Amino acid sequence: MFTLLKTAERGKARLGRLETDHGTIQTPIFMPVGTVGSVKAVKQEELKDRIKAQIILGNTYHLYLRPGLDILSDAGGLHSFINWDRPILTDSGGYQIFSLSDIRDLEEKGARFKSHLDGSEHWFTPENVVETQRIFGSDIVMMLDECPPHPASYDYVKESMELTHRWAKRGREAFLNSEPRYGHRQFQFGIVQGGTFDELRNESARFMSELDTEGIAIGGLSVGEPTELMYEMTNLNTDLLPAEKPRYLMGVGTPANLLQSVARGVAMFDCVMPTRNARNGMLFTRNGTINIRNAKWKHHHQPLDEAFPSELCQVYNMSYIHHLFKCNEILGLELASLHNLTFYLWLMEVVRERIQNNTFDGWYEEMSKQVDVRI
Amino acid sequence: MFTLLKTAERGKARLGRLETDHGTIQTPIFMPVGTVGSVKAVKQEELKDRIKAQIILGNTYHLYLRPGLDILSDAGGLHSFINWDRPILTDSGGYQIFSLSDIRDLEEKGARFKSHLDGSEHWFTPENVVETQRIFGSDIVMMLDECPPHPASYDYVKESMELTHRWAKRGREAFLNSEPRYGHRQFQFGIVQGGTFDELRNESARFMSELDTEGIAIGGLSVGEPTELMYEMTNLNTDLLPAEKPRYLMGVGTPANLLQSVARGVAMFDCVMPTRNARNGMLFTRNGTINIRNAKWKHHHQPLDEAFPSELCQVYNMSYIHHLFKCNEILGLELASLHNLTFYLWLMEVVRERIQNNTFDGWYEEMSKQVDVRI
Repeated sequence: MFTLLKTAERGKARLGRLETDHGTIQTPIFMPVGTVGSVKAVKQEELKDRIKAQIILGNTYHLYLRPGLDILSDAGGLHSFINWDRPILTDSGGYQIFSLSDIRDLEEKGARFKSHLDGSEHWFTPENVVETQRIFGSDIVMMLDECPPHPASYDYVKESMELTHRWAKRGREAFLNSEPRYGHRQFQFGIVQGGTFDELRNESARFMSELDTEGIAIGGLSVGEPTELMYEMTNLNTDLLPAEKPRYLMGVGTPANLLQSVARGVAMFDCVMPTRNARNGMLFTRNGTINIRNAKWKHHHQPLDEAFPSELCQVYNMSYIHHLFKCNEILGLELASLHNLTFYLWLMEVVRERIQNNTFDGWYEEMSKQVDVRI
Repeated sequence: MFTLLKTAERGKARLGRLETDHGTIQTPIFMPVGTVGSVKAVKQEELKDRIKAQIILGNTYHLYLRPGLDILSDAGGLHSFINWDRPILTDSGGYQIFSLSDIRDLEEKGARFKSHLDGSEHWFTPENVVETQRIFGSDIVMMLDECPPHPASYDYVKESMELTHRWAKRGREAFLNSEPRYGHRQFQFGIVQGGTFDELRNESARFMSELDTEGIAIGGLSVGEPTELMYEMTNLNTDLLPAEKPRYLMGVGTPANLLQSVARGVAMFDCVMPTRNARNGMLFTRNGTINIRNAKWKHHHQPLDEAFPSELCQVYNMSYIHHLFKCNEILGLELASLHNLTFYLWLMEVVRERIQNNTFDGWYEEMSKQVDVRI
């Protein structure tokens, strides 16, 4: 369960601790994304020992389709299947059925969709996504929601939010009326929606607060709206959400997004950016982002940042990393993915130290600018 | 330099030690292939600590084109560029200019070819491939040769062999008249050719023996001829090659090929098979080869071989490895590559122990059959 350890003297940044049966998560925290049960190009051992990931995320939509519930049930759950003994959060599948699959039917009952893999038809309901995540054995179970696109009309967003709220009630009930399968506790998080309409955001935050789940996610952001609007909506939500619960801003974001959102009271983040951008040759550093393929690195026979504790920085020179990307070598993808995730987790560690030492407020604005530079 | 430690009581299997300034190589040994300076999907640290590679191979053709001599020279050589402090052998580029590039001209002077990357024209000569490998700083430098295809006529193979011999004289002279650049010793290996003609094979073996290089490679095999013929030619060659020098069978092969060739007196091997086949989902085990994608592994919630010391076997169940390949996850490529190379180096370690203990002769025929099974 969550313990709020400290709130920054000025502003809303918070230090917390979320205890699960797979270990304690120090917040603010970033969760690497392991869509189908693998954080892309990274080994479980590296996730633990090098990246120092405290929790990873899996996608219900993908895992439900592959390997499927029979395999995951036979394996004794997702932790055992992928050999990961720290916490796992799984989303509800809602986001992916709207973005990846072919939705056939969206109704009170739930959503009927066609798999993007083989066209087979399936239903996700507020109840069966709970059951599915019971089979996964996820430490944190997310509720089924509808995530409207941006922009969308007030009426559309209001109706969608109300459906999400009715689903949430059913999902909470299904959760409270079912049991974990593998002997460890599971928590459930509701998801605030409401698009970019203040009134709806507030209504949704109040609704989710009353539902009394173990944590609350801020959903429906980072879907194309301007960054400032994302911060504004996050701020509105964290003003209303209960202090004693962790807040998880879904699908966010850049290092600067993380810093700005921590300052607005967010505890948890996930995003494919560090791994996806790594595979495209983009590296994050404390001085900004770089493109490995840029010719300037060809003759750079020094590390990217010799003081930074990633394998890419500690073991190799940039001329070699540049060469690996030019030759499309898999090793380049491995080292870059490992580096970016190490950076994200390092940044969260610095954030936690600074909140602890009361030096976060004087630092994060400057640091947000610094990490956003293209060098 | 090479020390012959022991020859099997029966047969021709030999135990040896090749000392280089980057460390000692115990023979028989398999050399993982790092074409452009990266053993595909494997980290240098894993090569050392997990696979226990004693020496790796780089391809002159590829490295000459990318990153190129200026970068490698500025980096202080290949070891420093790729951060690998154990021995490196580089081939001469001969094989690749015939198989990959567009040969424009093959004449006494050398070979003029067009890069497969950008069409640019280059010359490889017996002298400049020595100079190139001086810039690499390779511990073992290979000579430029022509590798005829199979089948080829007697006349073609004879002429090609004679050209290879004239090139070898010039290459040896260039080597003896030049100096290492980075303060560590470099050795040079000649390459026996002669196709599958006994008389030419013998002539070439005698020629290369007289040239008195630090080691001798058996080239021109594993190019499409029947396996038995490859063994026969290898056997002919090792009958004539000097006992006090290491013999390196180029581009070979399957685990069974290695065992059979060790029995015929070979000390060193290289092949892309363990890594290439890994990426295609084929795993080598002591009981034969398996295809990860086969549906039989989908529900196999046990390790492939729990007693085998690879990460794939020690950490993961096969149902997960199958899933990773089905989902085209990079982690699958990493684990499979690591496993196959661990297997190849493990097999060579067993071979050395068995030669030492006089149990190789009674074992290798049976083991050759066992590792060749498809399970």
